[in-house]
Amino acid sequence: MKKRIGVLLSGRGSNFEALANSVAAGRIPHAEIAIVVSNREGAPGIQRAEARGIKTRVIPSKGLEREVYDRQVAAVLDEHKVDLICLAGYMRLLSPFFVAKYPNRILNIHPSLLPSFPGLESQRQALEYGVKFAGCTVHFVDENLDAGPIILQATVPVLAQDTEASLSEKILKEEHRIYSEAVKIVLEGKYKIAGRRVLLTS
Amino acid sequence: MKKRIGVLLSGRGSNFEALANSVAAGRIPHAEIAIVVSNREGAPGIQRAEARGIKTRVIPSKGLEREVYDRQVAAVLDEHKVDLICLAGYMRLLSPFFVAKYPNRILNIHPSLLPSFPGLESQRQALEYGVKFAGCTVHFVDENLDAGPIILQATVPVLAQDTEASLSEKILKEEHRIYSEAVKIVLEGKYKIAGRRVLLTS
Repeated sequence: MKKRIGVLLSGRGSNFEALANSVAAGRIPHAEIAIVVSNREGAPGIQRAEARGIKTRVIPSKGLEREVYDRQVAAVLDEHKVDLICLAGYMRLLSPFFVAKYPNRILNIHPSLLPSFPGLESQRQALEYGVKFAGCTVHFVDENLDAGPIILQATVPVLAQDTEASLSEKILKEEHRIYSEAVKIVLEGKYKIAGRRVLLTS
Repeated sequence: MKKRIGVLLSGRGSNFEALANSVAAGRIPHAEIAIVVSNREGAPGIQRAEARGIKTRVIPSKGLEREVYDRQVAAVLDEHKVDLICLAGYMRLLSPFFVAKYPNRILNIHPSLLPSFPGLESQRQALEYGVKFAGCTVHFVDENLDAGPIILQATVPVLAQDTEASLSEKILKEEHRIYSEAVKIVLEGKYKIAGRRVLLTS
């Protein structure tokens, strides 16, 4: 039976599309995207999911307390019997309730080499700090921002001529690559966790 | 006329030896190591410098206020007409006096991908955090710890079987390589500084 992925997004969802492409191409075998949830009306990622024939649900988050909202999302994910939850540009912190309900079953991708540059505008932060390597990180999600155990990272060089746009583009390409790889690793169970270290066992 | 490098160290000084090897091999052209200063009696780096016929000076720092001590070091560096100061395992923070006296003329190497894991035991910090890439950083020194503009960085993968010792060894190899490269870039003036970014212009 196929493993069922739920995606949470707030915007264009380019990482959702990368995952959908990987599933369609067999790079994430025995998996399907069961549901895409957006907390924002009109998120382009929802339209793109519909165009692919993937089920979608918009659950507006505005004005709702974190846990109240998260219980609504969890109900939808459970209704669709989701095995793994992938955040793809989901602009909300998760409640302790939600995180505790899905231990080691929520993944996020962040456009920096964590623990450097958590939070927003990571690419700009990296550029302004003057690092010579930037990158991206797929990690398990806990209740802290951009802080859970790391599954995969990728690096890209920062060159003298790089701008926020060119750096973001290079990083995004790596995001699309390693997110699918990480989902495959987790769905196939080819890892173990020791402290904060995720040790790949493939 | 040769550019004159002063090295400050506290211990074995493996990065000093790497610089000395690069100077001897012509990888840092038109340069010489004019003086090696240690703040600790019996630092193995001092013996290694003497074995190479390089001038050395031990200036014990114990019990001295930071600036009082740094003025003694500066006097020795000036006596030897030093153009560039390279820290090589120098276990002291520099005083604002010292940093202001040698603007953009003090380099340090740190065994992490700054701004991740500043301070001591960076390799252990990286391993325990669970990053998938570690590395090292050559940076200009300011009065903050491991914080000045970055000249070069190098990355190494962290593998499941890595220990603090194996990771440190991989990083050290990259330290030796990029420290010499960075010294060459700075001595040849092939860079400009924009904000915190060091843009290489070679």
